[in-house]
Amino acid sequence: MRFSEQPHRRFNPLKNEWILVSPHRAKRPWQGQQDRPDNEVRPSHDANCYLCPGNERAGGTHNPDYKNVFIFDNDFAALMPGDGDETDEDNALFRAAPAHGTCRVICFSPDHGKTLPEMPVAEIAAVVDNWAAQEAELSANHAYVQVFENKGAMMGCSSPHPHGQIWATDYVPAEPAREDETQAEYFDKHQSAMLLTYAAQEAGDGARTVAMNDHWIAVVPYWASWPFEVLLLPHFAVQRLSALTSAQRHDLADILKSVTIAYDNLFQTSFPYSMGWHGAPSATPGAPHWQLHAHFYPPLLRSASVRKYMVGYEMLAEAQRDLTPEAAAEQLRAQSKIHYRATA
Amino acid sequence: MRFSEQPHRRFNPLKNEWILVSPHRAKRPWQGQQDRPDNEVRPSHDANCYLCPGNERAGGTHNPDYKNVFIFDNDFAALMPGDGDETDEDNALFRAAPAHGTCRVICFSPDHGKTLPEMPVAEIAAVVDNWAAQEAELSANHAYVQVFENKGAMMGCSSPHPHGQIWATDYVPAEPAREDETQAEYFDKHQSAMLLTYAAQEAGDGARTVAMNDHWIAVVPYWASWPFEVLLLPHFAVQRLSALTSAQRHDLADILKSVTIAYDNLFQTSFPYSMGWHGAPSATPGAPHWQLHAHFYPPLLRSASVRKYMVGYEMLAEAQRDLTPEAAAEQLRAQSKIHYRATA
Ligand SMILES: O=P(O)(O)O[C@H]1O[C@H](CO)[C@@H](O)[C@H](O)[C@H]1O
Ligand SMILES: O=P(O)(O)O[C@H]1O[C@H](CO)[C@@H](O)[C@H](O)[C@H]1O
Repeated sequence: MRFSEQPHRRFNPLKNEWILVSPHRAKRPWQGQQDRPDNEVRPSHDANCYLCPGNERAGGTHNPDYKNVFIFDNDFAALMPGDGDETDEDNALFRAAPAHGTCRVICFSPDHGKTLPEMPVAEIAAVVDNWAAQEAELSANHAYVQVFENKGAMMGCSSPHPHGQIWATDYVPAEPAREDETQAEYFDKHQSAMLLTYAAQEAGDGARTVAMNDHWIAVVPYWASWPFEVLLLPHFAVQRLSALTSAQRHDLADILKSVTIAYDNLFQTSFPYSMGWHGAPSATPGAPHWQLHAHFYPPLLRSASVRKYMVGYEMLAEAQRDLTPEAAAEQLRAQSKIHYRATA
Repeated sequence: MRFSEQPHRRFNPLKNEWILVSPHRAKRPWQGQQDRPDNEVRPSHDANCYLCPGNERAGGTHNPDYKNVFIFDNDFAALMPGDGDETDEDNALFRAAPAHGTCRVICFSPDHGKTLPEMPVAEIAAVVDNWAAQEAELSANHAYVQVFENKGAMMGCSSPHPHGQIWATDYVPAEPAREDETQAEYFDKHQSAMLLTYAAQEAGDGARTVAMNDHWIAVVPYWASWPFEVLLLPHFAVQRLSALTSAQRHDLADILKSVTIAYDNLFQTSFPYSMGWHGAPSATPGAPHWQLHAHFYPPLLRSASVRKYMVGYEMLAEAQRDLTPEAAAEQLRAQSKIHYRATA
């Protein structure tokens, strides 16, 4: 199609939003900021890391000598539990509401020097099991559970120790609330789950596929905003992490490893990103319109040190990308299945 | 109100979106990335700058020896003019549409070493006049004209020469399209323009005011996402830059200087931001629901080198801020009216 070479817009049905694609634009020269790529080889234990086993955290608590996954309440939580007895401010232009929740940190491994792609599938599966258990536990008294990982200093992550976060709230936040609406509308209209249909169409096409196994497919979505954005989707109907069977979890660990290896290999660097899970809010038990999925939003564009700036036009007018999703998927698919730092 | 110290949510009526406010969170220790503050004193003319008068640009064109404001078509435009004869792709999940437009660069001054806050009000007024003229010209054959400035390397700006951009499109992009809807809904319901009412209420209150003069008010909006975000509003009804009278333009230049001086003085650095104008789309001539306004989105949070990362939770769930808009406005208001680098 002519669109592969010419500026055009694509529609994101999950966000109900258009984005601008300018395929030729990655070719312009870059004289702007260079970020520092992360190629550091780190020790398995760092005495100054507040996430390593046995070390002291803020406030004087000592981490246990954990062997696998370790979860604790965030020492600097953005949200706190509460009884919700405050009243809303309800003026048309000055609306505020109380917000309560629980913020936790999840260490993926006791090994300070590893990241997800460098962990064995069985260890990644333990992370998946813990995500699922947290979601099950926190859903009982929260409206929504957001599981996510900020990876890399470029993504505001203050520790290289492999870890993610879980923020559970007594309300459904803006993004999942919007996805709830768009998926419900699609379901009403088509009598099928948007992302289940989409996964099948992508699996049949292949142009945007980054990795696939029996239960999961990872694609650079047709409407991706970030250069190497990935959407991770199940081939089967499922609403929440806690509903995954053990075979589905194993395959999930497998594809998480594949996607993160492709990322690291692309620019031979520890590839920064924010990733997270969107599952159905706790308040909607059935929710056949919902499909559990993960978004990966990585900032890099041209190399380990040149990122895409989502600024000016993107903040004020519309998200804009400088290469097609098909071109990005092709690059990721072409990477070796072996991590560039793996020793044979 | 208790909200000044406790986590809560506020509603952005322009975006129709909630944000999370965690007032206590700016206090947590920061061990993450430090950015390089910009405190460089630059020469008035730089032989290697492609925006300075007389210098060569990509493709071999030479800039004229301009004395004031200079505007040219972007050598690496994200959009190109076209006849719009392509057809849309119209599948529910794979929707694409052609996109045509014009991208221009606007140099604010021939002086390489200056930025807006360091320019005299009369020179800023010349920038305003040129913004208005561009908007008038490009509206004639575009649906929407986006005037903006990316300032600072942190905001993806590849040249420190004072300049902005203008992208005009044959469609209304996502953000102004959304603001068109929210403002129209408000108008239908209240028979008044949302942002005109809001400006009057903020002027009466003062808690979020950063600067004010006869025609304009600059506030950290009640629903700000970025730590020191500013919304610049007229006290009078107006839809577009091109409709401003000369007194209104003069006052605009004056308040632009005040806001950018407060920004630079806050952390004694050339304060990075993306800013831009939202005016009514060309296709809606009357548009009484629209109020012309400018957004300033600056990334810094704690100091000249520590920014707010809008990552993880913010990308996946909901924008989150670490201090109240009232606290941010108070800090900006407290700054000297004289630029920290001005020599007396
Ligand atoms: O056009 P420039 O200054 O080269 O590029 C900058 O602004 C553009 C418009 O906001 C963005 O798309 C780019 O990512 C950014 O680096
Ligand atoms: O919680 P952390 O890792 O200290 O902080 C990081 O993640 C948070 C959640 O996405 C963001 O609000 C912060 O801006 C970011 O620096």
